[in-house]
Amino acid sequence: MAKAAKKMRAAVLVKPCEMRVESRDVPKPGANEVLVQVKAVGVCGSDVHYYRRGRIGDFVVTKPFILGHEASGRIVTLGRGVQKLAVGQSVCVEPGWPCARCEYCRAGRYNQCPNIRFLATPPDDGAFCDYLAVPVDFAHPMPEGLSFAEGAMIEPLAVGVHACRKGDVHPGDTVLVSGCGPIGLCCMMAAFGMGAARVFLSEPDAFRREIALEMGASGVFDPARQDSVNLLREVMGHEAQVVLEASGSECAIQQSIEMIGPGGRIVLVGFPHKDMVPVNLVHLMSHEAEVKTVWRYANDFPLAIHLAASGRAPVSKLITHRYPLEQAAEAMEKMGQAHSLKSVFEL
Amino acid sequence: MAKAAKKMRAAVLVKPCEMRVESRDVPKPGANEVLVQVKAVGVCGSDVHYYRRGRIGDFVVTKPFILGHEASGRIVTLGRGVQKLAVGQSVCVEPGWPCARCEYCRAGRYNQCPNIRFLATPPDDGAFCDYLAVPVDFAHPMPEGLSFAEGAMIEPLAVGVHACRKGDVHPGDTVLVSGCGPIGLCCMMAAFGMGAARVFLSEPDAFRREIALEMGASGVFDPARQDSVNLLREVMGHEAQVVLEASGSECAIQQSIEMIGPGGRIVLVGFPHKDMVPVNLVHLMSHEAEVKTVWRYANDFPLAIHLAASGRAPVSKLITHRYPLEQAAEAMEKMGQAHSLKSVFEL
Amino acid sequence: MAKAAKKMRAAVLVKPCEMRVESRDVPKPGANEVLVQVKAVGVCGSDVHYYRRGRIGDFVVTKPFILGHEASGRIVTLGRGVQKLAVGQSVCVEPGWPCARCEYCRAGRYNQCPNIRFLATPPDDGAFCDYLAVPVDFAHPMPEGLSFAEGAMIEPLAVGVHACRKGDVHPGDTVLVSGCGPIGLCCMMAAFGMGAARVFLSEPDAFRREIALEMGASGVFDPARQDSVNLLREVMGHEAQVVLEASGSECAIQQSIEMIGPGGRIVLVGFPHKDMVPVNLVHLMSHEAEVKTVWRYANDFPLAIHLAASGRAPVSKLITHRYPLEQAAEAMEKMGQAHSLKSVFEL
Amino acid sequence: MAKAAKKMRAAVLVKPCEMRVESRDVPKPGANEVLVQVKAVGVCGSDVHYYRRGRIGDFVVTKPFILGHEASGRIVTLGRGVQKLAVGQSVCVEPGWPCARCEYCRAGRYNQCPNIRFLATPPDDGAFCDYLAVPVDFAHPMPEGLSFAEGAMIEPLAVGVHACRKGDVHPGDTVLVSGCGPIGLCCMMAAFGMGAARVFLSEPDAFRREIALEMGASGVFDPARQDSVNLLREVMGHEAQVVLEASGSECAIQQSIEMIGPGGRIVLVGFPHKDMVPVNLVHLMSHEAEVKTVWRYANDFPLAIHLAASGRAPVSKLITHRYPLEQAAEAMEKMGQAHSLKSVFEL
Repeated sequence: MAKAAKKMRAAVLVKPCEMRVESRDVPKPGANEVLVQVKAVGVCGSDVHYYRRGRIGDFVVTKPFILGHEASGRIVTLGRGVQKLAVGQSVCVEPGWPCARCEYCRAGRYNQCPNIRFLATPPDDGAFCDYLAVPVDFAHPMPEGLSFAEGAMIEPLAVGVHACRKGDVHPGDTVLVSGCGPIGLCCMMAAFGMGAARVFLSEPDAFRREIALEMGASGVFDPARQDSVNLLREVMGHEAQVVLEASGSECAIQQSIEMIGPGGRIVLVGFPHKDMVPVNLVHLMSHEAEVKTVWRYANDFPLAIHLAASGRAPVSKLITHRYPLEQAAEAMEKMGQAHSLKSVFEL
Repeated sequence: MAKAAKKMRAAVLVKPCEMRVESRDVPKPGANEVLVQVKAVGVCGSDVHYYRRGRIGDFVVTKPFILGHEASGRIVTLGRGVQKLAVGQSVCVEPGWPCARCEYCRAGRYNQCPNIRFLATPPDDGAFCDYLAVPVDFAHPMPEGLSFAEGAMIEPLAVGVHACRKGDVHPGDTVLVSGCGPIGLCCMMAAFGMGAARVFLSEPDAFRREIALEMGASGVFDPARQDSVNLLREVMGHEAQVVLEASGSECAIQQSIEMIGPGGRIVLVGFPHKDMVPVNLVHLMSHEAEVKTVWRYANDFPLAIHLAASGRAPVSKLITHRYPLEQAAEAMEKMGQAHSLKSVFEL
Repeated sequence: MAKAAKKMRAAVLVKPCEMRVESRDVPKPGANEVLVQVKAVGVCGSDVHYYRRGRIGDFVVTKPFILGHEASGRIVTLGRGVQKLAVGQSVCVEPGWPCARCEYCRAGRYNQCPNIRFLATPPDDGAFCDYLAVPVDFAHPMPEGLSFAEGAMIEPLAVGVHACRKGDVHPGDTVLVSGCGPIGLCCMMAAFGMGAARVFLSEPDAFRREIALEMGASGVFDPARQDSVNLLREVMGHEAQVVLEASGSECAIQQSIEMIGPGGRIVLVGFPHKDMVPVNLVHLMSHEAEVKTVWRYANDFPLAIHLAASGRAPVSKLITHRYPLEQAAEAMEKMGQAHSLKSVFEL
Repeated sequence: MAKAAKKMRAAVLVKPCEMRVESRDVPKPGANEVLVQVKAVGVCGSDVHYYRRGRIGDFVVTKPFILGHEASGRIVTLGRGVQKLAVGQSVCVEPGWPCARCEYCRAGRYNQCPNIRFLATPPDDGAFCDYLAVPVDFAHPMPEGLSFAEGAMIEPLAVGVHACRKGDVHPGDTVLVSGCGPIGLCCMMAAFGMGAARVFLSEPDAFRREIALEMGASGVFDPARQDSVNLLREVMGHEAQVVLEASGSECAIQQSIEMIGPGGRIVLVGFPHKDMVPVNLVHLMSHEAEVKTVWRYANDFPLAIHLAASGRAPVSKLITHRYPLEQAAEAMEKMGQAHSLKSVFEL
C-alpha cells in the first residue's frame, strides 16, 4: 500500500431493517495486529437476525453497528511487533479474539473465554467494511489457489470442523447431517474431510437437497415425509453413530435424537429456535448416547483451510449470491429468499 | 461343599404385588461358570418396579419370575474349565453377561451388547434365591474385610463409578449430584473415589440429605426451596463442571442442566420418569456443555470393589433394612417407605 | 458347495528352508465358525522369517507347520449357530482369535489377549492351504469390487490403520513414515485415509521410493544421504507431529526420534531388529514427545476394508508377485529379492 | 505495604560455585502483573546444577544470575488492570510465563511454548530474592492453612501431577515410581491424589526409602538387589500399568521399561543423565506399551494446591533443611549431602 487510506466504507445497521453505507475511520493496527484490507465477507444467519430484530438473545444492538464476521482479505499494514506475516499476504480472519489469559484460554478452549471480542457481536463492530485491524494470530494465511470468496467461507467451514471434532467423527463413520443450509453443508464437507465413509442429509427444501447431492452427499431425505426415521435407518443400514444437527428446528432435533444408535452422539450445531425443547431422554439413555454442543470453534481454522485448499471441501459451491458492498441494503433485504444459500460481499 | 444341594429356595414374583418363596432346582454350572451360594442380595428400584407393575418399558414379566441382581456369595462348585477361582472364594456377582462376540463386546463396550443376559431382566431370572450359576469372569473376588452385604452393594456402586467415568470426573473437581437415593449416594462415593474435591447433593427429603452429610457430602440442598439454583451456585463458588443426575425427575433434570458451566457435562444416571423431557438446549449450547448417559456398567466392578474395600466408599451406610429371604413378600411391600435407603436380603 | 471336500492342499514347512505341498484333512467348522475356501494369501515378512530360521523369538516351529496369515476367500460351510453370514460370501480373514473372556478382551484390547490363537504362530497352523475354519466374527465380509488378492492385503493395511490410530493421526497432519516396505506403504495409505494432509517417506531403496511416489507419497527421501534429517525438516516445513517407524532398523528408529517436534509421537510399527536400541531420551523429553508401539490390531479390519474398497488405499499396488500354491517352495526361496514388495498365493 | 521498598536482597550466582547476597532494584509490576514479596523458595536439582556447572545443556549462565523457581509469597502491589487478586493475598508462583499467542499456547499446551520465560532459566533471573513481578494469572491463591514453605513445594508437586496426567494414572491403579528424591515423592503423592490404589517405589538409598514409607508408600525396593525386577513383580502381583521414572539414571530407566505390562506406559519425569540410553524396544512393543515424557507442567497448579491443602499430599515432609537467604552460599554448598531431600529458603 503506497499510502494508507484514512477513510473507508462501512455498511452500517442504523436501526433494524435499515442499513446504509457510511464513511468511517480506517482502524490503526495495534501491537501484534495487522491491518487487513477486506476483499470478501460472507453473510451469516446471525447477521440477518441482527438486521431484522436488532438483537440475538442478550446481545442487543444499541448504536449504529457494522455486521459481518466471515472475512478474508490482504494485509496492508503491520502493527508493532508483527514478524510472522508480511504485507501483501492473503488471510482468512478468525473473528473471535480471546483474552489469552483466563482459565479457558490457558486450557486451549479459547472459544469459551468470557472476555472474547467477536466481530459483529455487540458491542464490537464487524467486517462489512474496507479495513479491519486483526490480531496477527487470528489472521490465517491463505494458500495459493483459494479465492477471497472461498476464504470468506472458511469461517462457516470451521464451524463444521469443530462440530465433527466434538462429535468424534472418525474415518469410516456413517454420519447424518440434519439440515442443508450453509452450516449443514459445511458439516457435510468437514465430515468427509475427517474421513467419513458416508454422509446422509435430511432437509425439507428440495433445492437444498439437490445442492447437497451435487456437493457429494451419500443420500438426502425429506424429513417431512412420513416414516422418514425408518427410511433413514433403512438406507443407512443401521442407526447413526453421529448426527450433526444444523437446523435448530425442534422437530429436527427430536428426530435426530431418535436416529442415534448405541454409543452414538448428536452434536447440536444449529442454534435451537426455542430455549426449551422436549427430547427423548429414555431413547438417549437406553442407547448410552450423548448430546454434545458446539460454541463457535477453537484451533479449527488451519484444518478448515487445508480442507478447502485441497479441494476436499468445495466451499465455493455454497455461494449463490455476490454483491458489492454498496448494495448491502438491497442484499440484506433479499436474504433468505428461495434458491439461496450463501451471499458474499466482494469489496 | 461336601454334597451338592439339589433344591433351593427362591422368592418368586407370581404376579404383580404377589411374591412367595418356592422350591426350585439348583442350577448346574456350565463350562467356565461357577456355582455361587448367594449370601446377600440388594433390592433395587427396578425390582420394586417389576414387583408393582410387572414390567419396565418393553421388558414384561410373563411367567413366575425371580427378581434381584445385586448379589454376593461364595463359590461352591466349579464348572468345567474354571481355573482362576476356587471353591470357597467370596465373590460379587456382576449381573450382566454379554455375548463376548458382537462389535460392542469386541470394542470393550459390553454393556451395549444386544445379546446380553441380565439377572432379573425378563426372560432371565434373578438372584433372590440360594444359588446362581455365574460365568467365572463375572464373579469378582471380594477382598478380606468386605461383608457379603457390602459385596451386594458393589453393583450400585459400579453404576456410580461408570457415571463418574462417563462424566470425566477428575481429581480436584467440584461435582453436583442430583438426588440422594442409593444411586445418588453411590455417585457421591464414586466421585470422591475419583478424587473429586467437593461433592454437593440436591435432594428434597431431609432424612436422605442427612445421610449424605454423614457419608461425607460437602454440602446438601433442598431443590424445592426457591432460588435453589442460585444458592447452589453461590455455595459451590461457580457453576458445576459435572452434574450426576440420579433422581430421574423432570424438574431435577432441568435444574441440573441449568447448573452446568462452560464445557461442563451432565450425566443422566437415574432413569427419566418420562420419555420426553423439555430441556434448555440454549443454555447447553451457549456453555458448550453436553448431556451424557449411562447404561449399566462395563469394566467397572474392580474399581468399585477397590473403593469399598479401601474404605473410601462406605457402602454399608446405604443399608437401612435387612431381611431373611423368607420375608421377601413383606419386605417388598415395605419398600420405599420413609427413612429407608437400601434393603438387603441375607441368606 | 455341492459336496464338501475331505482333503485339501497345504504348503507345509517341514524344516527350515524346506517347504512342500501336502494333503491334509479339511477342517470342520465348529459352533460359530465358518469354513472358508481360501482364494488368496499374502506372504508376510514373518512367514519368510519362520521359513528361513524356524523361529521368531520365543515362538519356535517344532513340527511340520503351515505358514500364512493374510487370507481371503469364500464361505463354503456354516458351523452351528452362524446366522450373520451366508455360504458364498467373500470374506477377509482376521487371523487372531482372542479368548473373548480375559480382562484385555473385555476392555476391547483383544490384541493383548494372552490366550489369543493366531494363524501361523506356533503352535497354530496358518493359511497356506485350501480351507480354514474361522470364527464367524473374524470373517469380515468383503464388499463388491474388491478382488481376493486385495482382500489378502487387508491384514497388512489393518496394521497401518492400527498404527495411525495409536499415533493419533488427525486430518490435516503431516506424517513421516520410515520405510517403504509393504507395512510402511500400508501406514502411508492408512494415514491418507485418516485425512493426513501430507505423508513423507524415508527409504534407502530407490525402487521402493518410486513405488511410494506412484502410490501418492507427498515426498520421499533417502535416509542414507548426509543431512537427511535437516533435509526432511526443510521439506516438511517443520518437525513431524507423527512418525510411523516401519523399518525396524536401529538407525531409522534413532532418526525418527530426532525428527519429532513438540508434543509429537513416534509409533514403532516395524519389529526392531535388535532388543536394545539406544534412543535420544533427552530429545524426546525436551519435546514432551512420546514413543508408542503397536501389537497387531484390534477392531481395525472394518476401516481397512472401507479404505481399500473406496479406493483410498490402493492395496493392489503392493503386489509385485503372484504364485499358485504349488509353487510355494520356489516362491519362498525368491522372497526378498530386489524389486519386490508383496507376494500373494492365489488358490 | 505502607511504603514500597526500592531495594531488595538477591542471592546471586556470580560464577560457578560462588554465590553471594547482593542488593538489587525491586522490580515494578507491569500491566496484569502483581508484585510478590517472596516468603519461601525451594532449591531444585536444576538450581544446584547451574550452581556447580554454570549451565544445563544449551542453557548457559553468562552473567551474574539469580537462581530459584519454587516460590511462594504475598502480594504487595498490583500492576495496572489487576482485578482478580488483592494486596495481602498469599500465592504460589507458577514460574513459567508463556507468550499466550503461539499455536501451543492457543492449544492449551503452554508448557511447550517456544517463547516462554521461565524463572532461573537463562537469560531470566529467578526467585532467590525478596520480590518478584509475576503475571497475575500465574500467581495462584493459596488456601488458608498452607504455610509458605508448603506453598514453595507446589511447583515440584505440579511436576508429579503433570506426570500422572500424562501417564493416565486412574483410580485403583497400581503405580511404580522409580526414585525417591523430591520429584519421585511428588509423583507418589500425586498418584495417590489421583486415586491410585497402590504406589511402590524403587530407590537405592535407605534413608529415602524410609521417608517414602513414612509418606505412605505401599512398598519400597532396593533396585540394586539382585532380581529386583522379579521381586517387584511378585509384590505388585502383576506388571506395572504405569511407571513414573523420576531418577534419570540409565539403569532405572531400563528397569522401568522392563517392568511394564500390556498396554502400560512409562513416563520419564527425571531428566535422563545421558542423551542416548539403550532401551528394550522389543519388550515395549510386545506389550504394546509406550514411553511418555513430561516437560514442566500446564494447568496443573490448581490440582497440586488442592492436594496439598486437603492433606492428601503431605508436602511438608519433603523439607529436610531450611535456611535464611543470607546463608544461600553455605546452603548451596551443602546440597546433595546424605539424609537430605528438599531445602527451602525462608525470607
